Amino acid sequence: MNSGLPFLIAAKLCDIAELQRLALTSSLVDAMGHLIHALQRERGMSNLVLGSQGARCQQALRAQVHDTGLCEQALRQRLSDLDTAASSRGHGARLFSRIAYVLQGLDALPLLRKQVEQLTWTPARATAAYIRLINGLLAVVFEAADSASDPLISRRLVALFNFMQAKEFAGQERATGSALFAAGQAEPVAQQRLLHLIESQERCLQVFQDFTREHGSPSWADSSPASPPAVLERLRRILCTAPAAGPLDTGLSQTWFDACTECIDAMKRTEEQLCAGLRTLCKERIATATADLVAHQQLLERAADLAAPFDEAASFFGAEASVVGVDQHAAPVIGQGYGPQVERSILELVQDQARRLQAVSDELETVRASLNERRLIERAKGLLMAHRSLREDEAHKTLRQMAMNQNRRIVDVAEALLAMAEVLPERSR
Amino acid sequence: MNSGLPFLIAAKLCDIAELQRLALTSSLVDAMGHLIHALQRERGMSNLVLGSQGARCQQALRAQVHDTGLCEQALRQRLSDLDTAASSRGHGARLFSRIAYVLQGLDALPLLRKQVEQLTWTPARATAAYIRLINGLLAVVFEAADSASDPLISRRLVALFNFMQAKEFAGQERATGSALFAAGQAEPVAQQRLLHLIESQERCLQVFQDFTREHGSPSWADSSPASPPAVLERLRRILCTAPAAGPLDTGLSQTWFDACTECIDAMKRTEEQLCAGLRTLCKERIATATADLVAHQQLLERAADLAAPFDEAASFFGAEASVVGVDQHAAPVIGQGYGPQVERSILELVQDQARRLQAVSDELETVRASLNERRLIERAKGLLMAHRSLREDEAHKTLRQMAMNQNRRIVDVAEALLAMAEVLPERSR
Repeated sequence: MNSGLPFLIAAKLCDIAELQRLALTSSLVDAMGHLIHALQRERGMSNLVLGSQGARCQQALRAQVHDTGLCEQALRQRLSDLDTAASSRGHGARLFSRIAYVLQGLDALPLLRKQVEQLTWTPARATAAYIRLINGLLAVVFEAADSASDPLISRRLVALFNFMQAKEFAGQERATGSALFAAGQAEPVAQQRLLHLIESQERCLQVFQDFTREHGSPSWADSSPASPPAVLERLRRILCTAPAAGPLDTGLSQTWFDACTECIDAMKRTEEQLCAGLRTLCKERIATATADLVAHQQLLERAADLAAPFDEAASFFGAEASVVGVDQHAAPVIGQGYGPQVERSILELVQDQARRLQAVSDELETVRASLNERRLIERAKGLLMAHRSLREDEAHKTLRQMAMNQNRRIVDVAEALLAMAEVLPERSR
Repeated sequence: MNSGLPFLIAAKLCDIAELQRLALTSSLVDAMGHLIHALQRERGMSNLVLGSQGARCQQALRAQVHDTGLCEQALRQRLSDLDTAASSRGHGARLFSRIAYVLQGLDALPLLRKQVEQLTWTPARATAAYIRLINGLLAVVFEAADSASDPLISRRLVALFNFMQAKEFAGQERATGSALFAAGQAEPVAQQRLLHLIESQERCLQVFQDFTREHGSPSWADSSPASPPAVLERLRRILCTAPAAGPLDTGLSQTWFDACTECIDAMKRTEEQLCAGLRTLCKERIATATADLVAHQQLLERAADLAAPFDEAASFFGAEASVVGVDQHAAPVIGQGYGPQVERSILELVQDQARRLQAVSDELETVRASLNERRLIERAKGLLMAHRSLREDEAHKTLRQMAMNQNRRIVDVAEALLAMAEVLPERSR
């Protein structure tokens, strides 16, 4: 009798179902990336239209709105592929909830566009609206990374999320710098914001590289992004070091925009490579798991004819069977009184699987720790922004300053801050 | 247009599917509890049979083996209810892998019984074999608690697991004490083990009570177990304080066995109440989630007729739409330019759901922290046992001593130990 084997097969089926879910999620992330890129371009052009009071870029914006529409359609198509069968799977509730949020935003997009067309919103307000929508899309990618239960894929998704987030910061940098050059005058709040965006970009790229380096595959390591070109670094310096209300050369506006765009487009190409790599990885992992499944099923067929119960008992209970903790599966004793190979290998398979799943779970915990840190820091920043009416860059600076003063990590300060907020009465929060 | 709403409904369907999975898992835990109780009795009787070289208890053991068989059948029935449809859900792989392991053990049970019947194994070896099997069953309960994604249910499962584990320690205490009284002579290793079992029991009951207290419901708090009766405490004192090789009154053997059994049976009744409470909770949670779902679906039907896009845009983007972190969903702005109630409430629903899911995720993290600590400690103990050939109680004492010397928590010492083992070369582990 081998009652355990069918459950070993069920466990393998779970793995495969999860991998297939991840393949679907990955293709979703791919479509999100395209839409985000289109929205980033649309945001830039909307800014130019609003900044010039409709004198510039109207035509190009209309063409871009059309392109964005195609990306949106493609994404909505992918979303409808997430059929209700998937609804019973894994951490779906949170992913679906994020999707629901972002779809509310996409539904509202035509209205945002109308405000731009009628020149009724300021560039700042339109930019903020686009940022909110893009953040909603990025939140789906974050959730996809957080809910992935395969460490290899989770690692790639975390890297990809950080890369996409870096690219979004680059987009915001382009917009902020464009506004500064267009105004022809340095302005400390915008300069501060610019510095914050550059720093945030670098932080995300650092995480991206950390997650890339640990993985060995060459096609994966090749996709590390190049450093920003010298021309961009020079323009950054000009923007950030100009004295308050000092003059800025409006003629550099286009140079800045083009240099940023070149950089962002290069990032988009890298992002596409990352997505393609992720798709390949999903396929490979599904193939491996399927091969394992077939092997298990063949074993089950062979095992049905066999019965070597004594040897099995000996190997399950072991010669020196000892008290084991909840998490220890003692290794079977090899030696005399040893039964047919097939019997032994089933118990070993079961034990190998248990060990493998434990290793997977440990590895996932490591990968998710970085996401959790990010979540804590973002929430603490949000708390500071709401509570003390700070801008994002100020909130970040405050956190960093607190961490320096207390000689602690930013994430620890964030955690302490959130814990403190929890015990404060609701009214004073 | 309300493209978000269907995904809100999908998220709710995920919740319901997960709750139904938990209801199934809970009924599995219930059946596990019955089988564990039967195996504990069988273990006690097997000990008496082996200890008396077949002179005692043969008849009673045969009856008990029959009863255990019924419990095993009931459990196997429950397991076959975990149909393959469930295989695509949640953390199934780990649960199924644990089940596969325990089924290997159940398959081997007839052989263990043959060893007892033929008096070929020592009482110690038979006891160790039963312990391994029961630990395998408890590991399934642990996994069920760890993979539950509803905090209320997870909390109950953690409490229940600790209670069942305490009961198992009580069972081992009964066996160890019985052997001591039967031998008529105190023996330091067994006395040490006894102390360890008492301490472990109390630790588990403490965790159980911590998880009970935090929850408010009276039926849940009522089920706290009574302290052991005075007679048991007196016998414990006699057993633990007798000098090495000092005499023990063999006449107290039956008194000890009965006092322990009474205690364990009372624990079994409490366990059944806990299981019944868990079943009720699952039903209630499913009913609430289903009511939410119906409300969402009604909203979707109503929303299909409506289109108030401007107001939606205003509420999605907000009057003072700001840069928000990945995890902040800004509250909609209430005030002028405000649309029909239904539109607003959908966005609010989406945001409420996101907040609720975040709260759920935070709460789950807290509940699982206790399981994770346990896992780390068990693994560190296993490492010490394997590496330095210690018994479980010695390994535990070593860990505790290290923690005291370093003025750190046991779990921190365990974590450091495991991290150290990871960097050691494979050969020396």
